[in-house]
Amino acid sequence: MGFSFNLVKQDKKSYARAGEFITPNGVVKTPVFMPVGTQATVKALSPNEILDVGSQIILANTYHLHLRPGADIIAKAGGLHKFMGLADTIPILTDSGGFQVFSLSKLRKITDEGVEFQSHIDGSKHFFSPERVVDIQSKLGSDILMPLDECTAYGASYEEALSAVNRTTAWIARSVKHFEGVHKQKSATTKKPQALFPIVQGNMYHDLRIKSLNDLLPYARYGIAIGGLSVGEPLDTLQQVLDTLAPNLPSDKPRYLMGIGSPEKLVESVLRGIDMFDCVLPTRIARNGAVFTTRGRITIKNAQYKADFTSLDKECDCYACANFTKAYIRHLMNTDEILGHRLISIHNLRFLLRLTEQLRQAILGDKLQAFVKSFYKKYQKSLKM
Amino acid sequence: MGFSFNLVKQDKKSYARAGEFITPNGVVKTPVFMPVGTQATVKALSPNEILDVGSQIILANTYHLHLRPGADIIAKAGGLHKFMGLADTIPILTDSGGFQVFSLSKLRKITDEGVEFQSHIDGSKHFFSPERVVDIQSKLGSDILMPLDECTAYGASYEEALSAVNRTTAWIARSVKHFEGVHKQKSATTKKPQALFPIVQGNMYHDLRIKSLNDLLPYARYGIAIGGLSVGEPLDTLQQVLDTLAPNLPSDKPRYLMGIGSPEKLVESVLRGIDMFDCVLPTRIARNGAVFTTRGRITIKNAQYKADFTSLDKECDCYACANFTKAYIRHLMNTDEILGHRLISIHNLRFLLRLTEQLRQAILGDKLQAFVKSFYKKYQKSLKM
Repeated sequence: MGFSFNLVKQDKKSYARAGEFITPNGVVKTPVFMPVGTQATVKALSPNEILDVGSQIILANTYHLHLRPGADIIAKAGGLHKFMGLADTIPILTDSGGFQVFSLSKLRKITDEGVEFQSHIDGSKHFFSPERVVDIQSKLGSDILMPLDECTAYGASYEEALSAVNRTTAWIARSVKHFEGVHKQKSATTKKPQALFPIVQGNMYHDLRIKSLNDLLPYARYGIAIGGLSVGEPLDTLQQVLDTLAPNLPSDKPRYLMGIGSPEKLVESVLRGIDMFDCVLPTRIARNGAVFTTRGRITIKNAQYKADFTSLDKECDCYACANFTKAYIRHLMNTDEILGHRLISIHNLRFLLRLTEQLRQAILGDKLQAFVKSFYKKYQKSLKM
Repeated sequence: MGFSFNLVKQDKKSYARAGEFITPNGVVKTPVFMPVGTQATVKALSPNEILDVGSQIILANTYHLHLRPGADIIAKAGGLHKFMGLADTIPILTDSGGFQVFSLSKLRKITDEGVEFQSHIDGSKHFFSPERVVDIQSKLGSDILMPLDECTAYGASYEEALSAVNRTTAWIARSVKHFEGVHKQKSATTKKPQALFPIVQGNMYHDLRIKSLNDLLPYARYGIAIGGLSVGEPLDTLQQVLDTLAPNLPSDKPRYLMGIGSPEKLVESVLRGIDMFDCVLPTRIARNGAVFTTRGRITIKNAQYKADFTSLDKECDCYACANFTKAYIRHLMNTDEILGHRLISIHNLRFLLRLTEQLRQAILGDKLQAFVKSFYKKYQKSLKM
C-alpha cells in the first residue's frame, strides 16, 4: 500500500544498517534524523529551510495539533502537508500524543478505555482512545501515524512497567483494527495510504522490553518504534536496552527510536540497528545559544566568541556557516534577536542531518568503525549527555 | 565623493517627486521606505529576505550598536555591511542615537557639550558628543550617517523647542567640522565615502521648523532629514508641518522624514515632497499579528480567519502570500511560533516597499492623484493612525 523498506546494507561488525524507506511522499534514506515540527512548524524554520538543511521526513505532534488548531481545520486545509507549506515535498510522521498526555497535560486519568486529560493550555477536557488517536491522524493526513501507548517515567516499578506494556499491547490491537477496518489504512483527508508503527515499551526492564517487542511484532506491518527511552536514564542504560533489543528487531522493517537527538546517543543507537530518530533537542538548545559542532557543543554567548569572525563550525555546509560569524550570531543571541535563533536552529539541524548522512555513507563504504572513532576523537571534548 | 541625487520627475499637482539617490553601495530609487535593523538585523529577517522584499537601503542604530556589541567589534568585522551579511548589496543609513537617548536611556543629562546617559540595558554610563557620534558611525562604516540632534517631546513648550533647535544647529556645525576635517567624509573602517544629513527640529512650531531648516541648509551637502515628527501628534498636525516645510526644502537633495511608516502617513508625506522614510512599525506590529493589506489593517488572531485558506492579501507578491494561508499564519501566531512573526514581518515590509514603488510609478506616469484616490478607497475601512 505505498510503503516498503529495502535493507541496502547490513554492517558486518555491528547492528548498523543502511536502508531505504519508501513512502507515498518520497524515499527516506536511513539512518535518518527527523526534525520535529510539534505545532506544524519546525521551530524558527520556513518550509524551504526545512528542505535546505536536508530533511527527508519530519515529525509533527497529534496532541498539540488536536488542541490547536484542531484536526478539522487541518483537514479543511487539505491535510498537514498543505497546511504547513510542504505539499509534494517530504513525508510527515505524527506522534500519537501519548507521550505528551503523560508529560504535559494536567489531571490525566488512564483506564483501559483510554486517557482523559486536561489541556496544558486552557484546562479544557479531552479524551484520547486508541481509535480516536487514529481518527485524528487520519484527518491530519500524515504519512506515518503512531498508536496510543502508555509511557512510564524513568524509575517506574516493574509492576507499573508491566502494566503499561500490557495496556500498550491491548491498545495496539484496537488501533490496528480501527486503522485497517475503518480507515482502510488511508487518510480520510488526502485518501493517500498511511502506515502505522507499534511502539515498544517496558521501561528499563530488559525482559519487559523483549515481551513488549514480541507482543507487538504481529502488528509491525510497516515498521516498529521504541518508546519510553531518553527519559532521564544514563547513556549506558540506554545502550544496554538497545543491546537487548537489537538482535530481536525485524530486519525487514524500519526501526524508529523515539525522542533521541544528541549526537552521541544517535551514533550509539545507529550502532545498535536503529534507522529513524526524532528529537526537539537541536531547536530547543538553539534558544539558549547552544551549538553542536564537530569539536563538541559550544555556548555562543560566551565572551570568548565576542570577536571570533570564523563560522560556527568550519566543517559545516549550512546557510549559517556559509554566511555568518560567531561574533555576529553571539551578538544576535545577546540581543534576543530572532535571526540568532533561526541561524543556530538551521545549523544544529544540519549538524544532525549531516551526521546521519555520514553514518550512512560510512556503513555503505564499510568504514563505520573508523568513522565513529574519528567522530568521538573530535567531539569528545564536551561530552554532555 | 560618491553620492549624488537626480531628480527624475517632479509631480505637477503636488510636491511629490521621483528621484535616484546614488551611493557607493548602489542606487536608491525614491520615494523609498527603509526597513529598520536596529541591532544590525531587520527583526526576524535574514539578509536574503531583506533583499527579497525589495529593500534598496536599510537603517541601523548607533545607540544600540554602541551598547552592543560596540563599534570596535563591528570595525573588526570589516564594518556593518560585512558584520550583518550585507556586504556588496545595499547601502545602510545609521541613526545618530539622539532619539534613542531621549526615549530609551535613563538619567540623561544634556549640556552644550553633549549628552550623558545610562544604558537602558545595564545602567552603564555613556557620553555622546557630536564628534563622538560621528566617530562611532565612521567606525560602523554605514553609508549615510546622522549627526547628534536634540529631539523634544510632543507638547514641548516653544522655549524648549527653540532651545533644541539652537542646540541642534550648534551641534551640526561641530558634527560637519569633525566629519569633514578629521574623517574626510570617509569611514575609518571601510575607507569608503560617507554622507551626512542634518536633522531639522522645531517640534510643531512652524516658524521654528523654518528657522531650523534655514540654519541647517548650509550643512545639507548630501541631503536633509526631518526629525521630531510622528511622536504622537495627529495626522493633520504632521501634514501642516510638512506643508510649511515643502516649498522650502532643497529640490536637488534627498529629503528624509524620520520614523514614519504607517501607509497613510507615508502617502501623505510623499505628496509633500518626502523621498525617504524609515519606521519600526511593520515589524513591531507583526509581533502582535497585525497585518497591512490593501483593504486595510487586519488582526490575524481574530477567529474569523480560523478556516480562511486565502493569502494575507490577494494583491501581494511576497513569500508569505505566495505560500501560506491566513488560517496557517493565525495558527502560528496563536501558538507563538517564530515562523508566524517572520511571515508577517516579510509581508508588512513588502507592503510598504511595494507602496513606495507604486507611488514612484504613479509619479513617473503622471497618475499620482488617481493612485492615491484608489489606494484610500480600498484602504479606508480601517484607518488607524
